[in-house]
Amino acid sequence: MSRTLQLYHAAGSPNSRRVRVFLAEKGLELTLIPVDRGAGEQHSEAYRAINPRRVVPSLMLEDGTTIGEVPAIMRYLDEAFPETPLLGATPKDKGLVAMWERRAELEGFAAVMEGVRNKSAGLKGRAIAGPHGYEQIPALVDRSVLRVKNFLSDLNERLEQVPFIAGDQFSAADITALVTIDFARALDVSVPDEHRSLKRWYEAISARPSMKA
Amino acid sequence: MSRTLQLYHAAGSPNSRRVRVFLAEKGLELTLIPVDRGAGEQHSEAYRAINPRRVVPSLMLEDGTTIGEVPAIMRYLDEAFPETPLLGATPKDKGLVAMWERRAELEGFAAVMEGVRNKSAGLKGRAIAGPHGYEQIPALVDRSVLRVKNFLSDLNERLEQVPFIAGDQFSAADITALVTIDFARALDVSVPDEHRSLKRWYEAISARPSMKA
Repeated sequence: MSRTLQLYHAAGSPNSRRVRVFLAEKGLELTLIPVDRGAGEQHSEAYRAINPRRVVPSLMLEDGTTIGEVPAIMRYLDEAFPETPLLGATPKDKGLVAMWERRAELEGFAAVMEGVRNKSAGLKGRAIAGPHGYEQIPALVDRSVLRVKNFLSDLNERLEQVPFIAGDQFSAADITALVTIDFARALDVSVPDEHRSLKRWYEAISARPSMKA
Repeated sequence: MSRTLQLYHAAGSPNSRRVRVFLAEKGLELTLIPVDRGAGEQHSEAYRAINPRRVVPSLMLEDGTTIGEVPAIMRYLDEAFPETPLLGATPKDKGLVAMWERRAELEGFAAVMEGVRNKSAGLKGRAIAGPHGYEQIPALVDRSVLRVKNFLSDLNERLEQVPFIAGDQFSAADITALVTIDFARALDVSVPDEHRSLKRWYEAISARPSMKA
């Protein structure tokens, strides 16, 4: 069954990496179809029919239905392939993983993305991904760096209490946070040495074979 | 069982309304505990122990665990009370509802929120909810209005094709979009007359008894 699922992705896309790592942790191998963002392939008519927001990744199901948005793709995969759940196994854990994954995304990942999109010369007029163009707002770059630093500090505090971000188990929240930290290099932000719990977690998580995906 | 679940909320909070409507659609009655934001109760030590992000709503489970973030609360409720699923019934529908609910939130709800938080005199230094203070960026107000208008236009196109936002069934995506449109009055944005499919959908959805919640 999994052989006929197709993931449209890009090698250098942090959002694509979140899904590739998720798949590797679940032991799933899908057909990967690269989208050449350098050539603007995400804006092509063919790709817009797959994902009108013109972003990667997108998951195409066996019946041709496409699902965009990383948490939605993760949700489908954890439901269709319930072995090795990465979004929690009980109602309570599902709620808690959804909460922590979302915080990692909104406070961390989205902040890095906002900084990058408002900074890069190549993204003028494209400060928000999607079908509509928006001008860059330079003041958002500094604010994003500050948000990412606050995120790392909060994450360090959290990891002083628990081994994984959502608690006792590895989950999608760890994937999103790990990818965020690697992505933050684009803003010249890295984990400060004094965040010892976060550093220990980062070293453990980044050594997982899935993280090469 | 549901009688011992507690929802911390505020009457005028659009995020709280998303959960109250969700509960009403599922026919669940929880203990509602008001948080007085006018008096800054969300910043109190007692509430920060419940939700360190200092926002409403928060759901407290029977064992004292608290879940914050609206989609996470919805996830818990749909898992713990599977009757009348509002996040989809099959893996495919769960993925699609997650996608559409998220788009309604990120492109609509979050855009209104960004506009309001960067505009209101009472929110100086609090442009982003949470434990960290951020200065307002006036340029975000106009951009937010533009984003909300684009959201309404995209939503109208979508509703030319399908009766509900995620497809054939009412779902959490309709709740988030409806609450977004009512919330957009804070930015003086309303549905233009020419968005006829959106207007028809809005009238039908807002007439549901749950929407008074």
